[in-house]
Amino acid sequence: MIAAEELGTCWSDLRGQTPLVHCLTNVVVTPFVANVLLASGAAPAMVDNPHEAGDFAQVAGAVSVNLGTPQEQTVEGMRRAVAAAGDAGTPWVLDPVAAGGLAWRTEVARELLALRTPRVVRGNASEILGLEGSGGGRGVDSTDAVEDAVEAARAMAGREGTVVAVSGEVDQITDGDRLVQVPHGHPWMTRVTGVGCALGALMAACSAVAEDGMVAATTATVALTLAAETAAEGSRGPGSFAVALLDELHALEPEELVRRVGLR
Amino acid sequence: MIAAEELGTCWSDLRGQTPLVHCLTNVVVTPFVANVLLASGAAPAMVDNPHEAGDFAQVAGAVSVNLGTPQEQTVEGMRRAVAAAGDAGTPWVLDPVAAGGLAWRTEVARELLALRTPRVVRGNASEILGLEGSGGGRGVDSTDAVEDAVEAARAMAGREGTVVAVSGEVDQITDGDRLVQVPHGHPWMTRVTGVGCALGALMAACSAVAEDGMVAATTATVALTLAAETAAEGSRGPGSFAVALLDELHALEPEELVRRVGLR
Amino acid sequence: MIAAEELGTCWSDLRGQTPLVHCLTNVVVTPFVANVLLASGAAPAMVDNPHEAGDFAQVAGAVSVNLGTPQEQTVEGMRRAVAAAGDAGTPWVLDPVAAGGLAWRTEVARELLALRTPRVVRGNASEILGLEGSGGGRGVDSTDAVEDAVEAARAMAGREGTVVAVSGEVDQITDGDRLVQVPHGHPWMTRVTGVGCALGALMAACSAVAEDGMVAATTATVALTLAAETAAEGSRGPGSFAVALLDELHALEPEELVRRVGLR
Repeated sequence: MIAAEELGTCWSDLRGQTPLVHCLTNVVVTPFVANVLLASGAAPAMVDNPHEAGDFAQVAGAVSVNLGTPQEQTVEGMRRAVAAAGDAGTPWVLDPVAAGGLAWRTEVARELLALRTPRVVRGNASEILGLEGSGGGRGVDSTDAVEDAVEAARAMAGREGTVVAVSGEVDQITDGDRLVQVPHGHPWMTRVTGVGCALGALMAACSAVAEDGMVAATTATVALTLAAETAAEGSRGPGSFAVALLDELHALEPEELVRRVGLR
Repeated sequence: MIAAEELGTCWSDLRGQTPLVHCLTNVVVTPFVANVLLASGAAPAMVDNPHEAGDFAQVAGAVSVNLGTPQEQTVEGMRRAVAAAGDAGTPWVLDPVAAGGLAWRTEVARELLALRTPRVVRGNASEILGLEGSGGGRGVDSTDAVEDAVEAARAMAGREGTVVAVSGEVDQITDGDRLVQVPHGHPWMTRVTGVGCALGALMAACSAVAEDGMVAATTATVALTLAAETAAEGSRGPGSFAVALLDELHALEPEELVRRVGLR
Repeated sequence: MIAAEELGTCWSDLRGQTPLVHCLTNVVVTPFVANVLLASGAAPAMVDNPHEAGDFAQVAGAVSVNLGTPQEQTVEGMRRAVAAAGDAGTPWVLDPVAAGGLAWRTEVARELLALRTPRVVRGNASEILGLEGSGGGRGVDSTDAVEDAVEAARAMAGREGTVVAVSGEVDQITDGDRLVQVPHGHPWMTRVTGVGCALGALMAACSAVAEDGMVAATTATVALTLAAETAAEGSRGPGSFAVALLDELHALEPEELVRRVGLR
C-alpha cells in the first residue's frame, strides 16, 4: 500500500531540503519540538502572534498547529496561519491536544478543521474520538484503546478529505480508504513530554516534502518510533532516552529507515 | 513524627495511581516540570487559559500553581483553577516564585492564598518571608538563610491551616505544629532551572495520593533530593545532572526511598 | 585589540559575582537560556509581564531582550524593561530574532533600539541586515553570509553607539571602529534550538561585569564556542551535544579560556 522506499525518499528529502516549518504549539513542548525538527533536518520557527502568523504561513514549507496550551492571542494566530496556509497551498497539520476532554479547545479544533482542510490530523485515540464528538480522554492522556478510534479516524478522514493518524502502541494512519499500521516505538515515549507533539510537527515537516499525506504521516511516525527503539537500548530512563532520541533521529539514514521498517 | 514507611507508601501510591496533575506554571520550566512528573509516575497537564482552567481543576487529582512568569491571562486561569479546586476538594499547591521581591505577583500570591486554602505552600526562604511581608529576595534567588524563614513558615502554616515547605540546603517542612527537616540534596539542584518549581509540582502530585500535606510535601522533597544525590554521582556538570535526575526519579523504588531517607 | 586576559577577567568575574540577568526572551528557548546562564555562573530571572518588568530591570545586573516569540503583553514588558534599564544605567542586550523577515517584530526591534541604546545588538547576518533595512532571512535562519553583514554591523554600531555582534561560522563583533573575529564553534550549534538566543543572554550576563561591550560580547562568544568545541568531541549527536554544552560551560575555567582562545 505504501512502499518502504516511499518513506525513505520522504525522509531523504526532508534531510536534503531543510523545509521551514512554522510551528504554533504549546508552551510545554516548544524546545523539544524544535529540537526534534532540527535533529531531523527541518528548520523550525515558532511565530504565533496574530500580527505575523498569517504572513509567515505563506512563506513556510508547512504549518504545525498544536492546541496544547491555547490562549486567546495564540488561537487568533492559529486562525490566521491556517487561513493563510490554506490560501497559499501550504500544507498544515492539526494536533487537537485534549480534544473532547476540554470544551473551549474542542470548539477551536473544530473551527480550524472547518476553516481549511489540514493535510494531517494527529492525536491519540481519545483526542480523535473527542474531535468526532464520540469520546474524550483525561487531559492529554488517552483513555481509549487505539483500535476503538480507527473507525472514527476513517470517518473523519473520508469526510474531511484529510489523513488521520491515531498515535498509540500501534499507530494507525488512514485517509478513509487506506490504513497503515506502524508497530514500532517504546513505552518511554509516553514518559517524556512532547513526543506526541513532536510527532505532529514532524508530520508537518514531512508534508513539506511529500505531497501524499499518508506518506508524510507514515514517514514521520516510522522515523520517530525507529529512533525511539534505538534510543531506548542505550538509555537508563526517560531522561537519557529523550536525549538519545534526538541523537538517533539525527543519525537515522534513509537506508536504515527502509531496512528496519515493518508496516502492517 | 513522620515515619519513613509513610513516605514509601505515598511514593508507591504515586507510581501506582498515576494521578492527573493540573499545572499552571511558568514558561521557563514547563518541560522540566512535566518530565519530572512523568518520570515520577504522575500524569501532568498544563491548562492555564481562563476558559478551561476551572473545569479542569475539578477533574484533576491535584493542582499546582506557580507564579514564575505570571501574565493577566494566566493569573485569571489560576484564580479559576484555585476556586474550582477548593470547591471540588482537589488539593492544590502554591509556589509563590519571587514573592516579596516583585510587587504584582506578591499581591497575586496573597490573593490566591486567601481565595482557598492550599494543601502546601512551597518556596525558598526569601519567598516565604516575602509572602509573610517580612522580607524578599533577589528575583528567584533566596538571599535569606532557610533557618530564618522557619518561624515565618510556622506562623503562616498555623494561621492558614496549611503546610509550608521552605526549600534550601536542609529543607524545612511544617504545619505550624510539626517540623520535618530533610537534609538530602546536591548543590547542582540550584544550577538547573526548574528544580524548585518541579518540587512544588511533585508535592501537588503527592497530595493527590496522600491526604496529610506533611506526608505529601516530605515525600516529594525526599524523592527529589535522594534522586539528586544519585544523579550527581554519575554526572559531569549541571547538564548531565538534569538528565540523570529524571532517570533516577524514574528508577527510585519505594523500598530504596525508605532505606535511604534520613529525616531530622 | 582585545587581549585574551581581558576575556579571562570578564569570565572570572561572571563566575565570581553571579550577576542577576533579567531575561525577556521567547517561549521556545527559555529553559535552555536559563540553564546556559546558570551553568556559566549567572542568575537568570525571566520577568516579562508589564506590571513588573520595569521595576525588575532597575535591580538587575543586566537585561536581555529577545524577540523570538513576541506577543502584545511581552512587548509591553520589553518597552518598560528597556526604558527602566536605560534610566538606571543597567546594560541591556537586543536580540532581534527574525528582524527583516517579519514586519511587526522588525518595527518593535527598531522601536526598542531607538528607545534606549543597548550595550550590544546580537543577531545572525540576515537579522542585522534586516534591522538595518537592507535584507532579511528566512524565519530564524540566516540566508546571508556573515561577511556581507559586517559593513551593516559597522554602520549600525557607529551610528547607535553600541556593539553589534554578527553570529555565524566566524563571529564578527564590532563597535564601528574595532572588529573582532571569533573562529571557534561547531556546526551542531545550529542543530540545537536556543544556542543563538543563549549567546545573546550570555552577552547580557557578561555586560553586567564588564563595562566595555566589546569585551562582554567577545567573552560570551568565546566561552560558548569553546565549550561547544569540547562538547562536540564527546557527543553522538545534537541531543547529547546540548547536554554536554552545559557541562562544558560549567567546567570552563578562565585560564582554559585564555589558553585556548584564538581571536582574529
